[in-house]
Amino acid sequence: MTQFEPNFGVYSEVGQLRRVLVCRPGLAHERLTPLNNHDLLFDDLPWVDQAKRDHEDFVAKMVARGIDVLELHTLLAETLAVPRAKAWLLDRKITANEVGRGLIAGTRAFLETLDNVMLAEYLIGGLAASELPKEYRTDYLGLVRDSSGVNEYLMPPLPNTLYTRDTTCWIYNGMTYNSLYWPARHDETLLMKAIYLFHPLFAKQDINIWWGDPERSWGQATFEGGDVMPVGNGVVLIGMSERTSRQAITQVAQSLFTARAAERVIVAAMPKLRAAMHLDTVFTFADRDLVTVYPQIVDQIQPFSLYPEDNEQLKVVREKQGFIPTVAEALDLPKLRVVETPGSLYTSERQQWDSGNNVVALAPGVVMAYDRNTHINRALQEAGVEVVTIAGAELGRGRGGGHCMTCPILRDSVDY
Amino acid sequence: MTQFEPNFGVYSEVGQLRRVLVCRPGLAHERLTPLNNHDLLFDDLPWVDQAKRDHEDFVAKMVARGIDVLELHTLLAETLAVPRAKAWLLDRKITANEVGRGLIAGTRAFLETLDNVMLAEYLIGGLAASELPKEYRTDYLGLVRDSSGVNEYLMPPLPNTLYTRDTTCWIYNGMTYNSLYWPARHDETLLMKAIYLFHPLFAKQDINIWWGDPERSWGQATFEGGDVMPVGNGVVLIGMSERTSRQAITQVAQSLFTARAAERVIVAAMPKLRAAMHLDTVFTFADRDLVTVYPQIVDQIQPFSLYPEDNEQLKVVREKQGFIPTVAEALDLPKLRVVETPGSLYTSERQQWDSGNNVVALAPGVVMAYDRNTHINRALQEAGVEVVTIAGAELGRGRGGGHCMTCPILRDSVDY
Amino acid sequence: MTQFEPNFGVYSEVGQLRRVLVCRPGLAHERLTPLNNHDLLFDDLPWVDQAKRDHEDFVAKMVARGIDVLELHTLLAETLAVPRAKAWLLDRKITANEVGRGLIAGTRAFLETLDNVMLAEYLIGGLAASELPKEYRTDYLGLVRDSSGVNEYLMPPLPNTLYTRDTTCWIYNGMTYNSLYWPARHDETLLMKAIYLFHPLFAKQDINIWWGDPERSWGQATFEGGDVMPVGNGVVLIGMSERTSRQAITQVAQSLFTARAAERVIVAAMPKLRAAMHLDTVFTFADRDLVTVYPQIVDQIQPFSLYPEDNEQLKVVREKQGFIPTVAEALDLPKLRVVETPGSLYTSERQQWDSGNNVVALAPGVVMAYDRNTHINRALQEAGVEVVTIAGAELGRGRGGGHCMTCPILRDSVDY
Amino acid sequence: MTQFEPNFGVYSEVGQLRRVLVCRPGLAHERLTPLNNHDLLFDDLPWVDQAKRDHEDFVAKMVARGIDVLELHTLLAETLAVPRAKAWLLDRKITANEVGRGLIAGTRAFLETLDNVMLAEYLIGGLAASELPKEYRTDYLGLVRDSSGVNEYLMPPLPNTLYTRDTTCWIYNGMTYNSLYWPARHDETLLMKAIYLFHPLFAKQDINIWWGDPERSWGQATFEGGDVMPVGNGVVLIGMSERTSRQAITQVAQSLFTARAAERVIVAAMPKLRAAMHLDTVFTFADRDLVTVYPQIVDQIQPFSLYPEDNEQLKVVREKQGFIPTVAEALDLPKLRVVETPGSLYTSERQQWDSGNNVVALAPGVVMAYDRNTHINRALQEAGVEVVTIAGAELGRGRGGGHCMTCPILRDSVDY
Repeated sequence: MTQFEPNFGVYSEVGQLRRVLVCRPGLAHERLTPLNNHDLLFDDLPWVDQAKRDHEDFVAKMVARGIDVLELHTLLAETLAVPRAKAWLLDRKITANEVGRGLIAGTRAFLETLDNVMLAEYLIGGLAASELPKEYRTDYLGLVRDSSGVNEYLMPPLPNTLYTRDTTCWIYNGMTYNSLYWPARHDETLLMKAIYLFHPLFAKQDINIWWGDPERSWGQATFEGGDVMPVGNGVVLIGMSERTSRQAITQVAQSLFTARAAERVIVAAMPKLRAAMHLDTVFTFADRDLVTVYPQIVDQIQPFSLYPEDNEQLKVVREKQGFIPTVAEALDLPKLRVVETPGSLYTSERQQWDSGNNVVALAPGVVMAYDRNTHINRALQEAGVEVVTIAGAELGRGRGGGHCMTCPILRDSVDY
Repeated sequence: MTQFEPNFGVYSEVGQLRRVLVCRPGLAHERLTPLNNHDLLFDDLPWVDQAKRDHEDFVAKMVARGIDVLELHTLLAETLAVPRAKAWLLDRKITANEVGRGLIAGTRAFLETLDNVMLAEYLIGGLAASELPKEYRTDYLGLVRDSSGVNEYLMPPLPNTLYTRDTTCWIYNGMTYNSLYWPARHDETLLMKAIYLFHPLFAKQDINIWWGDPERSWGQATFEGGDVMPVGNGVVLIGMSERTSRQAITQVAQSLFTARAAERVIVAAMPKLRAAMHLDTVFTFADRDLVTVYPQIVDQIQPFSLYPEDNEQLKVVREKQGFIPTVAEALDLPKLRVVETPGSLYTSERQQWDSGNNVVALAPGVVMAYDRNTHINRALQEAGVEVVTIAGAELGRGRGGGHCMTCPILRDSVDY
Repeated sequence: MTQFEPNFGVYSEVGQLRRVLVCRPGLAHERLTPLNNHDLLFDDLPWVDQAKRDHEDFVAKMVARGIDVLELHTLLAETLAVPRAKAWLLDRKITANEVGRGLIAGTRAFLETLDNVMLAEYLIGGLAASELPKEYRTDYLGLVRDSSGVNEYLMPPLPNTLYTRDTTCWIYNGMTYNSLYWPARHDETLLMKAIYLFHPLFAKQDINIWWGDPERSWGQATFEGGDVMPVGNGVVLIGMSERTSRQAITQVAQSLFTARAAERVIVAAMPKLRAAMHLDTVFTFADRDLVTVYPQIVDQIQPFSLYPEDNEQLKVVREKQGFIPTVAEALDLPKLRVVETPGSLYTSERQQWDSGNNVVALAPGVVMAYDRNTHINRALQEAGVEVVTIAGAELGRGRGGGHCMTCPILRDSVDY
Repeated sequence: MTQFEPNFGVYSEVGQLRRVLVCRPGLAHERLTPLNNHDLLFDDLPWVDQAKRDHEDFVAKMVARGIDVLELHTLLAETLAVPRAKAWLLDRKITANEVGRGLIAGTRAFLETLDNVMLAEYLIGGLAASELPKEYRTDYLGLVRDSSGVNEYLMPPLPNTLYTRDTTCWIYNGMTYNSLYWPARHDETLLMKAIYLFHPLFAKQDINIWWGDPERSWGQATFEGGDVMPVGNGVVLIGMSERTSRQAITQVAQSLFTARAAERVIVAAMPKLRAAMHLDTVFTFADRDLVTVYPQIVDQIQPFSLYPEDNEQLKVVREKQGFIPTVAEALDLPKLRVVETPGSLYTSERQQWDSGNNVVALAPGVVMAYDRNTHINRALQEAGVEVVTIAGAELGRGRGGGHCMTCPILRDSVDY
């Protein structure tokens, strides 16, 4: 497995981050109301203007460290500048099954009048039926029932694109398109496919796709990047959670083994709880041999290891020791240093909920974290970690922190 | 539009019923527990043995009136007796996306050992991972997490097949495969396709399919038979509800108009409430000009009419009068006689909930109804209707009555 | 502790039952609708006429065995025939805090026109504001907002009186008035106090009241009879559950010890789950040394023993063995025979939900049980128990079985 | 009705505010976790340290305008310095019904060791059973079941004291102790009674109590200050909401009329929705004749007027015009100027949810508001109002704004 790759590839969880994809808050979040926010997976309503400012600060702190930060709205607008890309994407979004017969022509015509920046905003932020200008309407619009707080859309809002980690993920020298669990997120992946197919940054590259074309149907095989950690040493950790199923994990593992991109997948079988929706909500790396964990959940994880076997089969081994020792052994470490969510039962539960264990490493021993998790941040600092803080009051209301809000595209390996 | 068709075709809601599809309770209902019943759309747990007896009585009363009653388990077992059918269906059910890699061969091998009756029972009732016999297991089964009451399945249980009305529906001289709204019901339609493709009763027939191949993905276009009523006179009533969307309705309407199978579709735009999940939960026909309705909901329905136009377009007309006068006018009736859910506010709400408005006509002026809805049944009798009662204590716990439990396949027209 | 008591007293869970209080279904259940049933603690709506017939059968089967069955509506009507009793009760029900100023006189005047049978029906079944006849109305009634399914009451409906077990309970030679957990049941206990104070059967008796005057406020001290079992040998089992708190248990235990009515209380500390709302939903006696249990919950019970100490104090001992061995040892039995909810995980969960473990003994080795729990009933029969079945389709929708529906008033001891 | 009162009395909604009671965030909020926050009426978890800073800013801005701001923790600590007060309060908090037998002595002994500041913190913040130091424990503590996130308390946490508006309210020259709707708030009012009885600021005063002694039980008569507005001109507005019942309103009105403290009560009969839990969540005054309203709810309010009649009776008049014209007429205003929640349906719903309509006037035309409600704040400014902003990101998570967080104790009248 070569670890040299000029533009893309993620070879660890803590090596120097070089290029990363994020998505700023926007129109989609302005659509969150007390009647729709739970369906859209937000626990409360963010103040969007402040969330934008906080996200800009988040980006600026990465840029200041030399990281190339790509932003989804911008990438999508640049993609739409490619005429073939725009046609490809609108052909797939503006259909009878989505927009409804009789509204296709008008919707498409309206969208064609927009510049690419506005069009990208609507593609991510959604287009409510009530927003279609008069001149593009037909009698069919009478069938659309807008009611307070629960609007009908011609294109759905995608507020969870904020959490770019989940939609696609790089695993060593290739990536997966992810089949996301909740209906509210299904449409995110197609946008990413448009970008990877047509954006100049990616279009001419020969990118390995391990799995998950969003134009196919994947049934019970669901997969989200928050559960996936290419930790290095040929190992990938994958949380088997509410959102990431064995049906998907075994397919991805097989694909990685066939391409010799990985040698071992450690499946972290998690309890099915909202507090533990992804592996990265309870377990992230802060340094080469240092993790922050929420022990109430992590202690319940049952690890399994998958290895390649002949004939396109996997060897499935139920590990006898716990998840953390299993990971340590796989990385050839004598042990992992562990920073637990500190404080009382209350404090610990509160900080996990506020994404306290969801840090993202910018380099070995340097992480970004929400300001509000003061106890865990202090514990990380005492363990020698540099903690760069950002405001979490608004960004965190969909239950995601720095790890969730970043999709690494180029990250160095570390030695194990 | 020819109304002569030897074996199939539904030309009214109240004409003589000649052939009908039902599905008896079974294994799927034995899997309902207090932890999974709401996800599987049941409000409480039926006593399955009693539900079977009650369903047998339901069938016997139709048979006694000369109706040809087809039962889903039986049809499916007979279909599986066709080798090509069995292969076709198992190829589509036992896949990496559903069963998971590493369990395909074992699951298929186990299913191949079963006789067709047992196999049909599992296809409808589901196959829990824990039920796979030892000799067919692999290490992959370790990844399956069975927990109390919320089991993992190799094939999912389909308890809502009990309500055959929804999965497919005959509209005049053709039928639709329906794209059902809730994930718990998605897999029902594929079973019906296997039957229509391969069962001797249907295989050689040249059946018109208006819409909805279950092997395609339909996005927001969802459609359920409980919302569909081919009332005659070239008219189809379709409830636009939580479960049946305008995206589907307009496609089906277009297909009917293109084939000249109908001349007008009346869309009943309903409020989005569980009590009003389908049009037939608040409005059914008991005689040529007599309907039973739950006025609290029906009074809120906004009707629209769809008519064919040139160039594969529909004309959409928002009706100025209420739903019931609109239907009367479309049937060339001076008015519809209406039996409302009688009694106090309490009684009325209770009887609608217990499927009091969900009667199925066996012939003009003859309906089947649950015994517990004594007030509405008496009101129907006073209106001259013959009411044949069946026990609803167990069958009704998924919120469906006689109309929901029947899928007419051959029904005469009535004159308007 | 004397065990001779002419009319009252409960000295075991399985000794010959001689006198018992039940409450038939009625007006309160006709008020259950899909919008209010969960607040009123019912999972689905019973068919009230059928529930009445099923309850009559239940009573008849007890009467046939020589048991004196008292019925709550009847007892209450007979109590109201005592003028002082009627005044006492209406003074406490028709107040500014309950009925509201301006409606007291009219409501009282209307109720005074009723005969005692009707008045008892309204006291248990509730009086909706909309039911107050015109001649008793005032302008204040304008402030009452009746809305669909969630009505305002001048007196609240009390559908859970069906489960007489909870409201009061006899423990050896005395009884408790119970402070019930859910607001929907608070008003039940006052009716019982009226009966015990004024009904000829009780009024002249010198009844020991261990605890719980309903005219006082009890804060966190809540107590329900479904958690209380005076098993004999000086021992009382009390479930510490969602509904029965340590604040109440320790007060009752102290009162029993002070009166020398019991020598040991075994507290069954239960997990807080709806499926395990009371001890008797997972554990009841079928014979002197035979219990039926739902092991998934019972295995999680932590037993404590309370013993009298000097100075009005209790000795609290955390038991080292499980609940069932602790009970056996307290009864001087080598072991308890145990009939577990049999069958698969599904069957077991389903039968517990349907009150399969909630049997009531009429005599040693004779129990009443719901017909639908065929697996557990058969297992009891195989253990030598005579199982008298009753229909549970309607009566069981509030999640209570024979044990919940009976409040023993006179029951013999058994030898241990 | 005299309007001169040296220290206390609230004679309008917008006159110069002179003295006000607030309650800073504290220990109670540190106990909020994802498992208990909904029971404790918070939608999400505040960052307590930041909430404290934001609350200090809120207080400082009032102090800077010469307002005397009383803080609940401080008042309570000062009250506890009165020995009789401390005994009075602990006698009522540390009882068998609350703390449980066997833990009274230890709990009381522990609390007696604390200084008054710490004791006040625990009285408001709650005392978890697990926090009782070893030397004060007894075997009874074994019965306490602490589980993750849902702890047992010896004294309950009272996080909603943050919203001092509700617990007591001044109406002209007297006040009510309020019987709060949700169990999570029941214990707040007793703390206020201790303060009013014993704190030097209040103890010697002859304060009119209109209603609501917290040592009595009030049944269905619940009353919360967020529904109460003594607008002047002898008029009181009272929202009849989920939390404030007609049973209470009519008692308070009668008491006000008997004391000649008011001449008319306008009852605002509101729809029962969480978004509209109190009148002040959808309607507050910003100036003498200017209100900010959320029209989606306010347009549904049905107003009634209550007037005194002879013989302790009320005259109840259903108003024919809407709520806002009714208020204008009662204040002898030709009309009220209205600032509606502006913007799209989304914006409007979002801002109401974020307490955009819940402003508190410091003087005529000067209000405090959350920073995040930029649209409505701008609209108020355009109407000539001075808007003093405070941060709402943390303080607002329990769904209360400036109006909810203030209990005016002395406020001038305005001329009408």
